Amino acid sequence: MKKVVTIGEIVVEIMAMERGIGFREPLTLRGPFPSGAPAIFVDQVARLGHPCGIISCVGNDDFGRLNIERLAADGVDVSAIRIDPEAATGSAFVRYREDGNRDFVFNIKHSANGRVGPSPDVNALLESADCLHVMGSALFCEATISLTLDAVDRIKAKGGTVSFDPNLRKEMLDLPGMREAMRAILEKTDLFLPSGDEVSLLTTADGEEAALAELLERGVRAVVLKRGARGASYVDADRRFDQAAFPVEEVDPTGAGDSFGGAFVTAWLRGEPPEAALRLAAAAGALAVTRKGPMEGTSTRAEIDAFLDRLTEAGAPI
Amino acid sequence: MKKVVTIGEIVVEIMAMERGIGFREPLTLRGPFPSGAPAIFVDQVARLGHPCGIISCVGNDDFGRLNIERLAADGVDVSAIRIDPEAATGSAFVRYREDGNRDFVFNIKHSANGRVGPSPDVNALLESADCLHVMGSALFCEATISLTLDAVDRIKAKGGTVSFDPNLRKEMLDLPGMREAMRAILEKTDLFLPSGDEVSLLTTADGEEAALAELLERGVRAVVLKRGARGASYVDADRRFDQAAFPVEEVDPTGAGDSFGGAFVTAWLRGEPPEAALRLAAAAGALAVTRKGPMEGTSTRAEIDAFLDRLTEAGAPI
Repeated sequence: MKKVVTIGEIVVEIMAMERGIGFREPLTLRGPFPSGAPAIFVDQVARLGHPCGIISCVGNDDFGRLNIERLAADGVDVSAIRIDPEAATGSAFVRYREDGNRDFVFNIKHSANGRVGPSPDVNALLESADCLHVMGSALFCEATISLTLDAVDRIKAKGGTVSFDPNLRKEMLDLPGMREAMRAILEKTDLFLPSGDEVSLLTTADGEEAALAELLERGVRAVVLKRGARGASYVDADRRFDQAAFPVEEVDPTGAGDSFGGAFVTAWLRGEPPEAALRLAAAAGALAVTRKGPMEGTSTRAEIDAFLDRLTEAGAPI
Repeated sequence: MKKVVTIGEIVVEIMAMERGIGFREPLTLRGPFPSGAPAIFVDQVARLGHPCGIISCVGNDDFGRLNIERLAADGVDVSAIRIDPEAATGSAFVRYREDGNRDFVFNIKHSANGRVGPSPDVNALLESADCLHVMGSALFCEATISLTLDAVDRIKAKGGTVSFDPNLRKEMLDLPGMREAMRAILEKTDLFLPSGDEVSLLTTADGEEAALAELLERGVRAVVLKRGARGASYVDADRRFDQAAFPVEEVDPTGAGDSFGGAFVTAWLRGEPPEAALRLAAAAGALAVTRKGPMEGTSTRAEIDAFLDRLTEAGAPI
């Protein structure tokens, strides 16, 4: 099976249990939960029984150990997670507002997460990889950008594939080197997985249709459009089809897009038909929103199959 | 009244509500609480109605705003608290073990706290100061060490006083430049406030008596020995006396030593007799341990007087 490697932030998430605005008063919180978009992605790949690993860095603290233990237990190759002796493990505090929007307090850029670079462990993991999955959120500093660009080149040089989830807040595009880096990655991307407006974030064309045409023209082999509760679409040079989102009760949407991506990339690399891969991804995303905690929402194949069976029995359209 | 200025870390504290070991699983937490040893010290000074300020740096986030708002509301001059546009506000997670010891996860050294340096705001605050209080915990990086050494020289050059609380974990002494910095500060210290074994941390003499003699010989005018629940002692060239700790039910000892120091330094600078200053400090420390949250334990003069009155009425020895 083709081994998937990703690069980027591993953090703990601390969740406010009380809805409201921001973090300017003492609140009841719950955490630390293992988190970080690339970490959730790769954990979903591992829970599907697929070989995978992550290049990252955590601090020499309980928050780092919590994440490494969890990823290793789920089957992720953690050999290229550095433990920095000085910097703290990254963290993200999140609080839901009454309207469903979220407030954050991040410590990522100057946490251990930025302290990655070339090393024998990184080389060995990349040597063993057949697919590199790039998370746009990981491109938050020069060190991660440089490492990612180098890894993309190495994977492509050995005939591997690159999947790319922009996973980006628009203001991040103004970070130094970010837009150039994302354009360079897109040029070498085989599978592109944008959410919502991200489809036209890096194209000259405006609008979804024109952007899709431009992406395929520029060498992207397939695009998966993620629309959360409004479903998903698969597009390649030959066809386009949609997948409705499965009806579930939303508990915590954090990490659902990352679980969706992990499931799709896994099925796609295994050669499953795109229809089956997209249905698996939609099921993984649906299950993720039913569970509290960013990485708590990743699922095994058996859990996904049981979920789809229950829906079929209930007569829901899948 | 003589204005007190301190330098050092401002952080949020996140407390685990469940006793046990470390932070390797999701727990119920409570926070963010304003914290940081120098911040608690200066907040206690302000709550006694005494002019004071702090030189520090926080991130451009809710954790920084929470602290600045709290200190300003209590009367601290916050004009020399920088807001760094990039780095995160420092944080400390704390969990009590069953045996009363504490586990921590810190993000201080590479947080905004290290991003201090000379500036017009810092100059203006130091110009207005009559006393510099040095917290050893603040000497965690080159920037804070350099700023503190410079501030000590400036305060002494203008005839001001330096108070010094080593407030140190022993392993911190091995940080680059730490021991040299603490020795240099001690050479210019008027009032020294060590806890427990810290009295002989920087002396050549071993043992409390010999260390005290050496300190007074080297120019320290007065030493206040802090022993937590075992009371405190005042020592100068002429006399020595003890102050018992007031009997209270311990809820959260974090910050009690800093409140004790803030109260003692305030009374001492106001020219109160050492006996009265030490009793005030012991009362401030006792009140601090009865309240959950590191800075929640600081007290006004009215609260301290009411506490002492209640003890007197109850017939307790004070």
